[in-house]
Amino acid sequence: MFVSKFGGTSMANASQFQKVKSIIEMDARRKLIVVSAPGKRFSADQKVTDLLIETFYDVDRQGKSQLVIDRFASIINELSLPDELLELLPDDLDNRLNRQDLQVQEQLDLVKALGEEYSARLFAAYLQSQGLPAHYADPKDIGLCLTSPPSIVQLREDAFVELSKLRDISGILVIPGFFGYTKEGLLRTFERGGSDITGSILAAAVLAEQYENFTDVDSVFVANPNIVECPETLEELTYREMRELSYAGFSVFHDEALMPVYRKQIPVVIKNTNNPQAPGTRISAYRRTTHRPVTGITADEGFSILYVSKYLMNRELGFGRKLLQVLEEEEISYEHTPSGLDDISVIIRSHYLDAQKEQRIITRVLEELGAEVAYFRHGLSMIVLVGEGMRHSTGLAARATAAISRTGANIEMINQGSSEVSLVFGVLKDDQEKIVSALYHEFFSTVKATT
Amino acid sequence: MFVSKFGGTSMANASQFQKVKSIIEMDARRKLIVVSAPGKRFSADQKVTDLLIETFYDVDRQGKSQLVIDRFASIINELSLPDELLELLPDDLDNRLNRQDLQVQEQLDLVKALGEEYSARLFAAYLQSQGLPAHYADPKDIGLCLTSPPSIVQLREDAFVELSKLRDISGILVIPGFFGYTKEGLLRTFERGGSDITGSILAAAVLAEQYENFTDVDSVFVANPNIVECPETLEELTYREMRELSYAGFSVFHDEALMPVYRKQIPVVIKNTNNPQAPGTRISAYRRTTHRPVTGITADEGFSILYVSKYLMNRELGFGRKLLQVLEEEEISYEHTPSGLDDISVIIRSHYLDAQKEQRIITRVLEELGAEVAYFRHGLSMIVLVGEGMRHSTGLAARATAAISRTGANIEMINQGSSEVSLVFGVLKDDQEKIVSALYHEFFSTVKATT
Repeated sequence: MFVSKFGGTSMANASQFQKVKSIIEMDARRKLIVVSAPGKRFSADQKVTDLLIETFYDVDRQGKSQLVIDRFASIINELSLPDELLELLPDDLDNRLNRQDLQVQEQLDLVKALGEEYSARLFAAYLQSQGLPAHYADPKDIGLCLTSPPSIVQLREDAFVELSKLRDISGILVIPGFFGYTKEGLLRTFERGGSDITGSILAAAVLAEQYENFTDVDSVFVANPNIVECPETLEELTYREMRELSYAGFSVFHDEALMPVYRKQIPVVIKNTNNPQAPGTRISAYRRTTHRPVTGITADEGFSILYVSKYLMNRELGFGRKLLQVLEEEEISYEHTPSGLDDISVIIRSHYLDAQKEQRIITRVLEELGAEVAYFRHGLSMIVLVGEGMRHSTGLAARATAAISRTGANIEMINQGSSEVSLVFGVLKDDQEKIVSALYHEFFSTVKATT
Repeated sequence: MFVSKFGGTSMANASQFQKVKSIIEMDARRKLIVVSAPGKRFSADQKVTDLLIETFYDVDRQGKSQLVIDRFASIINELSLPDELLELLPDDLDNRLNRQDLQVQEQLDLVKALGEEYSARLFAAYLQSQGLPAHYADPKDIGLCLTSPPSIVQLREDAFVELSKLRDISGILVIPGFFGYTKEGLLRTFERGGSDITGSILAAAVLAEQYENFTDVDSVFVANPNIVECPETLEELTYREMRELSYAGFSVFHDEALMPVYRKQIPVVIKNTNNPQAPGTRISAYRRTTHRPVTGITADEGFSILYVSKYLMNRELGFGRKLLQVLEEEEISYEHTPSGLDDISVIIRSHYLDAQKEQRIITRVLEELGAEVAYFRHGLSMIVLVGEGMRHSTGLAARATAAISRTGANIEMINQGSSEVSLVFGVLKDDQEKIVSALYHEFFSTVKATT
């Protein structure tokens, strides 16, 4: 049995529905189908989920609602699906928008989930109309039971037993991604991109042969194609490599989604709905070795550094812990903490910060921790080299730093020593592209960068 | 006014006493003289402080006591000092060894401090016998007032007012280093090497023109002369450079001792008692710039790594803080925490660890923190490149890593990004020497390493 998840572009319109149907027909093992809400049909288009969020917040809800209804209406009309689906939708959306008994976040989740739900309802109806033994399955009915606040939305551990019964279904089930229900019956959504998580959970629960993730690229690239022209593609990746790549900019697969399949060692295959014959990229625990130490290069901007110095800091038991506690109390996750003898820096994603938070943190660090210097710097990028072969590769740091130094850029931070599969460089945002390009040429091309 | 501190080798025997006297006579500004206990006279010799510690713990205290007494007796005899000093000593030592009213640590401090006290008493008597206006000054009488347990032994902030009155003395004061008294009148010692701290405190209190630290080398070397043959010497260093160098192996100057003079910006001069004409090494806030980005290379062994991994660690607010808390509860200071996405390593000095502690930590990390993997690795060395010029030097990491890679050694950890004046490499202990040698040749020699 395969679990096959189709993303937003795969479900964007009637002709995409037809492609997905063909893909399902190609292999009888494709029995658990997870779908996203319809995504963009063209680059300037809006995703249905974005329309729903805007509808929720807009004063003119009526106008926005109609845009959502129109998207589904055109699919229903083009595929000649039963009118009753179109009759249900406006009232359903209206009800969700007018629920008075829910907290704001709960109601928003309910509104957002409509995109996936109707995507799945329509697609199940379409498969039926084409003679396939398909049914819509509500997450509640299959037992996709989620944790309740205040914990982050996750599958309840005990839900796996119920979900595992999906192994025994006959026919095809079409399941909306992105949402489930708490024990109290409240609808909650995963993070954005959460349909990947639904698919991964189901694949783990039924111990699927593989978890297919259909998107709109043939395979995963070794570097961002917006920076490197026609980068090489990856046939195979390990879970660890995928996880590290997803850290900074590799948005092909939601990083949290890897956990359930990783735990059960279910292989993941990234494939292209628009070119299903392409082999795609396979992610599993092991891969054939290549001669290359580096598997991929990824980069992400939007990082800040909190710099703190205090004389004899390294003789003060608990200083680092107290500093992290101050950040934790501001609900700030951190990425790295390079440290000198009398100073420590904390690398933080800038979106966690604002001027008030920064001021509070600096005041506390100076006053409560007795630091002599404390300030924030912004505008950094993290560039990550990823590869299972790296830990055995003497001289890799030398090649990477030499390639960076040839660009004339300064390295603000190097983090090596914990992960066996990654090496992180902190650089100024403006240097990011030329460094990624230089590293690509160093590790993936026989032609050296000429910049 | 200078504060001049003379270390153990400078006070090792009668002929060294004579050298120190000559040095004091060379400059009338040398008015506050801080002395260590007599150190080694030759490489197989024992330091008086070590003899005192052994006496304290030995079953045959009588025999060991005599060794201490003999050391002082030979100085008294050779310099024809008054016999009353020799009459005082045995009873004083005996009294200290038989105090019943003290805690073990308090009594040990009292015993250890005898070395400095008699070194200073004898030297003051010698200067007097040579017609110099010198007096012995007990730390209690000048107001060297220390903090009480449970805090680590440090000068009380309010002691500076009393100590600053030493500016107005006439003549020369000879002050024993290493110890002071709490408000309750209890004698306590600083850490080993603490005579440097006494000198630094006095220099800061009297706002000395300079703090001279007399030892047995002409100047500070850029690298360990036991590893690199005839390394270059340093005429000037900044406080920050000295501090970072002292972190790993540069034992020329006690790192905690730098704090008082650093705060008051008193220049420190390291000089050689056996060659006082040599210019020595000057440590201050600024130095003339050189063309070299690297000022010194230092290395120290005896480091361990605690490796911890947990899937999706970086999405878990507080994980790093909780890990550091576990270590803190075991009273373990840490050095660095390189981190990947799902893993974090903590670099710790191995002397903090033992098998039981390690087991407790691993159990807690696995059970309380829910980590999937946790283990210790031992036998690492830290190699540190230090230099004020490093932060402006593009390509420095590339040169360093290339030099290391040419030795064939693997880099286990790189820590760059917080300190502006240092770059730390974690390597296997067995690779330490060849890497220091390679880095020396890269940054200090025009001849490349041939290994």
